[in-house]
Amino acid sequence: MKKADNFVKNAAGRLVPTIVNGKKVIPFQGVNKYRPTHKGAAPRVPTCINYPKDCNKVVDSLKEALIKAGLKDGMTISTHHHYRNGDYVANWIFDIAAELGVKDLIWAPSAAFPCHAPIIKHLESGVVHHIEGSLNGPLGDFCSHGKMKGLGYLRSHGGRYRAVADGELHIDIAVLAASAADMMGNANGVLGKHPFGPVSFSRVDSKNADRTIVVTDTLIDFPCYPWEIMGNDVDFVVVVDKIGDPQKIVSGTTRITKSPDRLLIAEYAAKFIEAAGILRDGMNFQAGAGGISLAFTDFVNKIMIEKGIKARSMIGGSTKYLVDMMNNGRTDYIFDGQTFGLEAISSLRDNPKHIPIDVFDSYDFHAKSNLVQMMDVIVLGSTEIDVNFNANCVTHSDGRMLHGIGGFQNCMMAKCTMIAVPSFRDRIPVIKDEVTTLVAPGEMVDVIVTERGIAINHRRKDLIAATKNSGLPIRDIIDIKKEVDDICGIPAKPKLSDEAVAVVEWVDGTILDTIRKVEE
Amino acid sequence: MKKADNFVKNAAGRLVPTIVNGKKVIPFQGVNKYRPTHKGAAPRVPTCINYPKDCNKVVDSLKEALIKAGLKDGMTISTHHHYRNGDYVANWIFDIAAELGVKDLIWAPSAAFPCHAPIIKHLESGVVHHIEGSLNGPLGDFCSHGKMKGLGYLRSHGGRYRAVADGELHIDIAVLAASAADMMGNANGVLGKHPFGPVSFSRVDSKNADRTIVVTDTLIDFPCYPWEIMGNDVDFVVVVDKIGDPQKIVSGTTRITKSPDRLLIAEYAAKFIEAAGILRDGMNFQAGAGGISLAFTDFVNKIMIEKGIKARSMIGGSTKYLVDMMNNGRTDYIFDGQTFGLEAISSLRDNPKHIPIDVFDSYDFHAKSNLVQMMDVIVLGSTEIDVNFNANCVTHSDGRMLHGIGGFQNCMMAKCTMIAVPSFRDRIPVIKDEVTTLVAPGEMVDVIVTERGIAINHRRKDLIAATKNSGLPIRDIIDIKKEVDDICGIPAKPKLSDEAVAVVEWVDGTILDTIRKVEE
Repeated sequence: MKKADNFVKNAAGRLVPTIVNGKKVIPFQGVNKYRPTHKGAAPRVPTCINYPKDCNKVVDSLKEALIKAGLKDGMTISTHHHYRNGDYVANWIFDIAAELGVKDLIWAPSAAFPCHAPIIKHLESGVVHHIEGSLNGPLGDFCSHGKMKGLGYLRSHGGRYRAVADGELHIDIAVLAASAADMMGNANGVLGKHPFGPVSFSRVDSKNADRTIVVTDTLIDFPCYPWEIMGNDVDFVVVVDKIGDPQKIVSGTTRITKSPDRLLIAEYAAKFIEAAGILRDGMNFQAGAGGISLAFTDFVNKIMIEKGIKARSMIGGSTKYLVDMMNNGRTDYIFDGQTFGLEAISSLRDNPKHIPIDVFDSYDFHAKSNLVQMMDVIVLGSTEIDVNFNANCVTHSDGRMLHGIGGFQNCMMAKCTMIAVPSFRDRIPVIKDEVTTLVAPGEMVDVIVTERGIAINHRRKDLIAATKNSGLPIRDIIDIKKEVDDICGIPAKPKLSDEAVAVVEWVDGTILDTIRKVEE
Repeated sequence: MKKADNFVKNAAGRLVPTIVNGKKVIPFQGVNKYRPTHKGAAPRVPTCINYPKDCNKVVDSLKEALIKAGLKDGMTISTHHHYRNGDYVANWIFDIAAELGVKDLIWAPSAAFPCHAPIIKHLESGVVHHIEGSLNGPLGDFCSHGKMKGLGYLRSHGGRYRAVADGELHIDIAVLAASAADMMGNANGVLGKHPFGPVSFSRVDSKNADRTIVVTDTLIDFPCYPWEIMGNDVDFVVVVDKIGDPQKIVSGTTRITKSPDRLLIAEYAAKFIEAAGILRDGMNFQAGAGGISLAFTDFVNKIMIEKGIKARSMIGGSTKYLVDMMNNGRTDYIFDGQTFGLEAISSLRDNPKHIPIDVFDSYDFHAKSNLVQMMDVIVLGSTEIDVNFNANCVTHSDGRMLHGIGGFQNCMMAKCTMIAVPSFRDRIPVIKDEVTTLVAPGEMVDVIVTERGIAINHRRKDLIAATKNSGLPIRDIIDIKKEVDDICGIPAKPKLSDEAVAVVEWVDGTILDTIRKVEE
């Protein structure tokens, strides 16, 4: 089986396969063009008869649970990434699979992290065939070099939800880490010894997988409430000594930047939304957890205090900064899809206005609307942007896939999507003629903010008019690019082969771009 | 089309149709015998493209919403019963349908109440073909007399959820009353001018219906949180002057009984669970909202205070009695599927330990276990019981279907299910040789409590042994029956024709019994 076949040029002008890992896929047809005509996933109907009458589903080990769940060659196994770089569970699963001699598994994590590098040996040995999920670090690099047997399949957070709910990504066994669970399988991420926050990414897995295994290190008396994972959806409960390391949830990218250039970018972004009339009483906004996004939130906070403005809601990636803002009366609600840091976890657990959300709620494009559309502004980072406002957040300019795709594409649906980036990094320009990998089509990006100026997409005449006399350095993207190129020079194009190593799906399930093998 | 056809004798010895309203159905095969082999409902996949970009789904009227939703002949329309006898919405729908000349609709409410008597004219005129849902009062009487064009279809609360989730009951348009909603369709029953409690019965409708209409009298700013109904699942929002009358949620059956006999029954039930060792620290129990059940809860409360016992959770039908118990430290949690009275609604809104539950969570039998299985004890009322412990809660001894089926069958899965009933009512014995309608097979009923004594099912040798020396009046059910018959005489059998007017489904979707036409 070829990894990728039948290439065609899609509506974004990108050459993409129509066969991926043996399955037919649909090329990108343009933003808001593809309308599904099919029905969604129809999970097998279970019955209480097949489960213990006393609801005690605890088994002795993850190995026993996987065997009882019928683990076999070719199955798709899912996990979540709420422990981020502190996750233990995924590595255990594939070590057990190797021990049992199982082959050709598909791993469908909500995201993979550097801590999952031990899975490379299982990709090499054939235990794991390929990964469908956000990749970064060592696994991304491995994939970039064409070493994965199957094609990588990058879906946004909302896209992954969509794929499972639409029946395109069928999960055979979901293995879900929970910081607390009861014997029935009711589980969450806020109680127990090693809490990590909401289990936002996994409800769809537990509802649609044939088998669901909850792994916890804190078994508590029924009822384990909140029950983000419902015992009604769970087959087995496994108790281990330590489920993951919450200390590794927070990384360098989840602290406010100290770089003067990046602080300037954040300040520009905040002043821009003030000038554009977006920063107003009752606004809803999404606060990213990256360094610049956090600094942006901090500047917004200062303006809100100064002007006595209160937001209606903030969606996180929640951090102590957001929690402080809520505690100081700057927002009615925090909606939390992923928690960074212990302050945010205890707020989520104890403050009824700090609310866990499901990825469906926020991001699913195959819904009758979603929360992200209600966000007045979202600020994102990016690896590359280009003069047509196209954006890339997964590959570096050398072509290597080193960053997760996350919710990047989903955030494009907000009322104002801003990309806040330094104009160059390590003397490599961030603004290109054309992005190496297309992750978000330019028409979806409203504003690009750099330390050298702010570029507004020509489609957003409203924003151009509103900020005309703001005194902010509003510039043409091509001018900013030219200035940067004069400093850095135009770098050589990355050396990429024709061989596809991964595809990038758009939020509607169509194929937006192909990631190609990096030549050594 | 015959309403019912191809009758066979099922595993309970009851003659039931295998064709109901033109569809094939499965006869009851015995408790815990029928295992589904099919896949569940697969709703049509929607897309955000088809919904307003600003998420404003408000339309001018329910009529406009129904027209836009494509209302046409033969469709199935669902509503919920959280306003109970104060519901306005269902009557509006069928008045509009009549005005539009639409025929042969199927109404699938979670329950119907006497306030829905105006729908009788639409059943007579052919606007509504039949009702699939819990019936009582005038509609039940109408059906009992064979006047409904189609066959009535009685499903328990959990059975209705199951039927929708399993894809057996497809809802074309769900029309869901909400006491508050935002323009996107996020909605709940705890905010706004006329709150009614959780929207437990309707999430499954909103997730599976082709079209979902939210009707509210209180439109609030996004986000309307809690969003028990998610805007992501909603097509249209309708704002009306008054959505329903919360005063009519509470009826005579939701106050503690004052009858000395019934108080004695409740006291026996409480003393029984004390003697049997069920009433202990950390127990979970379901507290019904009927008069005897409430009195039982009150006696349990007194014993708990006396002995310093604290429950882990109570599932309601929540009432002020339950709320007082929680506020006085008698339970960690209230799980609330239906709220009776304003005190309970404000507790649900303001106390994070008073938690709304979905019918899936509590009652769905086609799940991998459910909450009701974790309940140590449940006390229920009944219209009739028989010497084999079979129970009936829908028909009177004259054969008329005057009571809702509610969650009666689902509660049979608890660890100890008790039926607490007076031994006769209006000089008609409640204990029969055989129940008029079989709603719960005798093997599922553990204990029957009357004012004349307590009968324990012979299968429950553990309970018999535990209460042997309790001093409680533990008696054979046949002895109690004989005593009652000596007082009341044995009443004549109801005059029933051979014609079927409704069927009773068991929790697994098989047909348990047939309800027959009452002869004038």
